Amino acid sequence: MPRKIELFVPAITPFATDLSVDKVRFVANARRLIANGAHGLAPFGTTSEANSLSVAERMEALDAIIDGGINAAQVIPGTGCCNANETIALSAHATGHGCRGVLMLPPFYYKGVTDEGVFNAYARVIEAVGPDLRVYLYHIPQMSGVAITLPLIERLIKRFGDQIAGLKDSSGKWDYTASVIEAFPQIDTYSASESMIPQNVAAGGAGCISATLNPNPTGIRALVDGLNGPDHDALHAQVSGVRSIFEGIPLIPAIKAAIAAQTGDADYARIRPPFVELGEAHADAVTDAVRIAGEQRPS
Amino acid sequence: MPRKIELFVPAITPFATDLSVDKVRFVANARRLIANGAHGLAPFGTTSEANSLSVAERMEALDAIIDGGINAAQVIPGTGCCNANETIALSAHATGHGCRGVLMLPPFYYKGVTDEGVFNAYARVIEAVGPDLRVYLYHIPQMSGVAITLPLIERLIKRFGDQIAGLKDSSGKWDYTASVIEAFPQIDTYSASESMIPQNVAAGGAGCISATLNPNPTGIRALVDGLNGPDHDALHAQVSGVRSIFEGIPLIPAIKAAIAAQTGDADYARIRPPFVELGEAHADAVTDAVRIAGEQRPS
Repeated sequence: MPRKIELFVPAITPFATDLSVDKVRFVANARRLIANGAHGLAPFGTTSEANSLSVAERMEALDAIIDGGINAAQVIPGTGCCNANETIALSAHATGHGCRGVLMLPPFYYKGVTDEGVFNAYARVIEAVGPDLRVYLYHIPQMSGVAITLPLIERLIKRFGDQIAGLKDSSGKWDYTASVIEAFPQIDTYSASESMIPQNVAAGGAGCISATLNPNPTGIRALVDGLNGPDHDALHAQVSGVRSIFEGIPLIPAIKAAIAAQTGDADYARIRPPFVELGEAHADAVTDAVRIAGEQRPS
Repeated sequence: MPRKIELFVPAITPFATDLSVDKVRFVANARRLIANGAHGLAPFGTTSEANSLSVAERMEALDAIIDGGINAAQVIPGTGCCNANETIALSAHATGHGCRGVLMLPPFYYKGVTDEGVFNAYARVIEAVGPDLRVYLYHIPQMSGVAITLPLIERLIKRFGDQIAGLKDSSGKWDYTASVIEAFPQIDTYSASESMIPQNVAAGGAGCISATLNPNPTGIRALVDGLNGPDHDALHAQVSGVRSIFEGIPLIPAIKAAIAAQTGDADYARIRPPFVELGEAHADAVTDAVRIAGEQRPS
């Protein structure tokens, strides 16, 4: 049976004027993304500004989307903090909600650490949360400074079996993605760019967890549904067209600006430091991206 | 009047067998460091594994050393987290204790951010904590990925005046330290290596906040007290001799192993993931460092 191909959105986190988490818009955006073709959500990822949120804010926002009707079985929240206690608290909270799993950064302050040390860090969390936890490993060395190496994955699977459920590769390096899929076909390996969906699926991957799913869920879902069909090239051109615009400008501020433009609700553009709002200089680029992404259902 | 030259120790954080913070040894080590010549403590820095501690653990450990008799006016705890809420909570807690100031990392998950964004992040924390907060900026780009640039410092001083109290330069690049001292003589600029104390002091700096102060407080204090005196070269050779040993092996595990060797208490060597204990391969190096550091008062 072929692997199920799915799209999980690292949903943006809207903020109120005092920069507190705007849970009303967080829930509305979650519903909009599902209504427009996303299979699920991976909130509290890099794009979600999760690392600018406190543990309490992350828990309350997760509560809000689940209370708001999003199916926990299709939610993979990010839970990896620098310190184990907070990672354990977030992971236990998500597991208690029945989430499909958690997307877990390695501890990311200290650099130059060993695979043994990173293994010990993951093991400590998994043992503390217990057997219901399912972990998606998060490889984003350009931000975390700590790579998820193949020997590390092997050691984790050997110890924890199917509690190691998958991996998101945000490195942008296809050779790494391919090596993970080949070595560990039993886990779900997601690319971070929808441009790689054809390669990812052909190699045996599980789909995509991409920032650009926020403004372009319909287009990316159409590509997944139409892979290798008569419209394949046009669908791929659409998603790559949207994506290439965002690659030229500050990504997270631009994603938020695009949601603001699509919804006609400027509040979605608000962002926490250390980011700054996108500004007028890139307004035309956002307009182009939104035009290519096309009409979205309101919710 | 010449600037006061001081040594603040980024005190290690001892752990119990279950890896909880060992507050009894944390206090005992703090007292030992002061008894052996340190002017003060900068706990919860990089060497303290602060980024492997939760907010609650950091607060409780700070309470413990102050309850244990360490003068808050000589304590500069690290408080910078990825997210503002936790940085504000820790900074307010330290300020409430009457700490001399806080050593504040910029938000360090997101890379490639602008000076404006980092300024906004610091400003948000300083405004939230209030006028009693004094901030020592923490420049350690090899870990944080976010540099404290000169234009950023200028903008912070212009806005917050003497609430910007100082800077610790952990980059190891003397040109940067010198440029900060020259441009901002009104703030206290600390080097992170005792090897640079003569240069730091000659240029108008304020001293040193160094990992190696943990095992070698007596030697480093002797250098500061004997700068340009008849024993200057021998004193400098001693501190550089100890330091060069640690530069060749995993620093934080080695510092903890050295404290264990000096105190005859193996529990000090315990470390949290993602670090691993130093191991036998480097035991001789630690023995050498401890021998050069010489006798330490027990408390």
